[in-house]
Amino acid sequence: MAKGQPEQPAVNPEAVDEVQQQPVPPDNGQRQFAQAVGDRVAEFLASRRAELSKISPDVVELIDAISDLSAGGKRMRANLCYWGFRGAGGFPESEQVITAGAALELFQSAALIHDDIIDNSDTRRGGPSVHRRFGALHVRRNWALDPDRFGRAAAILAGDMCLSFSEELFALATAVGMDEDNGKPGVDAGITNARGQGSRRARIVFDRMRAEVMAGQYLDVLEESAGPVRPAEGAVDRARAIIQYKSAKYSTEHPLVLGGALAGANDELLEQFSRFALPLGEAFQIRDDVLGVFGIPEKTGKPAGDDLREGKRTVLTGYTFQFASPEQAALLEQNLGNPDLNADQVWELRRIIEDCGALAATETLIEELSDQAFHALEELDVEPVVRNSLATIGKAAVRRVS
Amino acid sequence: MAKGQPEQPAVNPEAVDEVQQQPVPPDNGQRQFAQAVGDRVAEFLASRRAELSKISPDVVELIDAISDLSAGGKRMRANLCYWGFRGAGGFPESEQVITAGAALELFQSAALIHDDIIDNSDTRRGGPSVHRRFGALHVRRNWALDPDRFGRAAAILAGDMCLSFSEELFALATAVGMDEDNGKPGVDAGITNARGQGSRRARIVFDRMRAEVMAGQYLDVLEESAGPVRPAEGAVDRARAIIQYKSAKYSTEHPLVLGGALAGANDELLEQFSRFALPLGEAFQIRDDVLGVFGIPEKTGKPAGDDLREGKRTVLTGYTFQFASPEQAALLEQNLGNPDLNADQVWELRRIIEDCGALAATETLIEELSDQAFHALEELDVEPVVRNSLATIGKAAVRRVS
Repeated sequence: MAKGQPEQPAVNPEAVDEVQQQPVPPDNGQRQFAQAVGDRVAEFLASRRAELSKISPDVVELIDAISDLSAGGKRMRANLCYWGFRGAGGFPESEQVITAGAALELFQSAALIHDDIIDNSDTRRGGPSVHRRFGALHVRRNWALDPDRFGRAAAILAGDMCLSFSEELFALATAVGMDEDNGKPGVDAGITNARGQGSRRARIVFDRMRAEVMAGQYLDVLEESAGPVRPAEGAVDRARAIIQYKSAKYSTEHPLVLGGALAGANDELLEQFSRFALPLGEAFQIRDDVLGVFGIPEKTGKPAGDDLREGKRTVLTGYTFQFASPEQAALLEQNLGNPDLNADQVWELRRIIEDCGALAATETLIEELSDQAFHALEELDVEPVVRNSLATIGKAAVRRVS
Repeated sequence: MAKGQPEQPAVNPEAVDEVQQQPVPPDNGQRQFAQAVGDRVAEFLASRRAELSKISPDVVELIDAISDLSAGGKRMRANLCYWGFRGAGGFPESEQVITAGAALELFQSAALIHDDIIDNSDTRRGGPSVHRRFGALHVRRNWALDPDRFGRAAAILAGDMCLSFSEELFALATAVGMDEDNGKPGVDAGITNARGQGSRRARIVFDRMRAEVMAGQYLDVLEESAGPVRPAEGAVDRARAIIQYKSAKYSTEHPLVLGGALAGANDELLEQFSRFALPLGEAFQIRDDVLGVFGIPEKTGKPAGDDLREGKRTVLTGYTFQFASPEQAALLEQNLGNPDLNADQVWELRRIIEDCGALAATETLIEELSDQAFHALEELDVEPVVRNSLATIGKAAVRRVS
């Protein structure tokens, strides 16, 4: 799962400058949409909080953890869904795409909650990760038994609840009569097209997205354990397969295509969306992996070299195993996944990754993928406001420093 | 989450004998239904296996873990859904209720996978729990890093995938056109009623079920930690609230009501269903808790007194804290949740629970709840075959030894 979210430009700004881009007007609708998505998530969670607190006031802790986490984030997935929807001619102020965007945001929250347990991460979006939050609650209240175990158990359940909530919203977004229920009969393209044909396609994308991201995350976890005993020459290919499924398709391709499907896009347009979003998503994640090793802690919010301690096997480490001397490769292998790596050791590993050419090769790959994405964007058969807005999101995704 | 599944009668057979019950004819349809549900789950997982194995052959391990787990179990929830559906006049061979039953079974599998991580359980349905299965895979393949950590991470993801699959099937069961797609136009009551009104209500029940069971599980986990510092006189009430949400509603009430809603039942019938199923579910779970302390290991498949080692706070322990002497209560408090309890210590705690009258009070409660359930069953406005089949399921649920 991608740890960061795009914001500031940096690191390698030349990579994507071929795109001819007009400035996005501030009234392109995205800001209002993102706000509406945040409001929908908040309203939905508030209503569930009111209902579930009747079971026991203790239950609100679960909902509040989900709410606080979901209030953060930059809504990249929801925004891509929005532009896919608008690119396919969907009504800009559709209630349907707001609800679908809210479902995507809650899915992301659910994935982050479980991802942080798996990666043993202490922080997320500037606050404690959900399992740490519950561990701290346990300590604060002087409860019995093990705070860490309680924290993990509560976070597993919070993630499950959040995953179910996401689904609940998605079902609402694709329900027959969504167009009627929101008082705008006929304006939501997806539903009115051939008796919910758009909604059915969006459901297929949503289901595939969930299964594929979970499969990709499994491959990621597996590679940490199995990578050391598998052939080094396959490491880059394995890392790229992981990136595609756990991140690229999920973070960019599926949201954009889902939005398009919801608005009744034809196959040709959905394929154009994929040709743009898939390489963009790959570049986005590889940038994330570079930041996980070379990022500036003040910017990324994570300790320097954190991905090395976690034992993440990425394109960057894959190239290193191929390019470095046997001694250097052995040193990396020996230290990858050592949670006690100190600053000097991180420094030493970074030097190896840089000196052998692995960092340069990785930056070249990011550049190639960005080029692919932005060439595909030029071909995209959509209104200028859609293309320009996608270009802005795309640039932020590959140029970021956090 | 309930650990056992109903099967053999025993322990307290008198409790439910007031019900006048005709023998259920072997052709009541339940066996064929349960078989069809198992087939649907298997077919669905096989199709996802074929798709996801294209990502990487490694991914099949996730699906196979879900398949093996889902092949077991006695389909109590699916069967209750079936009788709710038939009780409301649904077509006995409806594809829709088979698909909804399959969704319920996969939801149960997902809950069990995560529940076993939370409870640190080694076994499930006669095999290793899913996290143990992946831990063993790690050891067998000689992978690097910690097998237990890998096992838990893989099981979190397997549970997430299973939860998504459950939802996928439920969306299919309630999709517009389910009746047309299965080639039997007009026979599925839920869909043809007022443009999917039945499906909409079933969706509400399904959503509530998921949120409530997760909330109930959280309260269960919380009580293990917070119970020791909360007032003993509230322990039985807290235990009963947990039981209602994490088990009773989920295991019996929601499946039965969901089936009824799907077939377009009116409010009156759905309320009748609840009046039967809710006390039954509570009795079912309290029986489970008694078996967790007093069950015979050869029958339950779990070590003697396993719930004591896990630190489960149940009606049984709640009564003990109320009835036992201060010294005895202190001894229980001190030992509850001690994973290293030996057989002598388990024996000693059992003696305390029995001598102070907590076991007898618990059996009385099971009896009262059973009586309530079976009186409500007599009032139920359904065909004899439905009532008799529900009586059989009900008796098995409260009389079981495993």
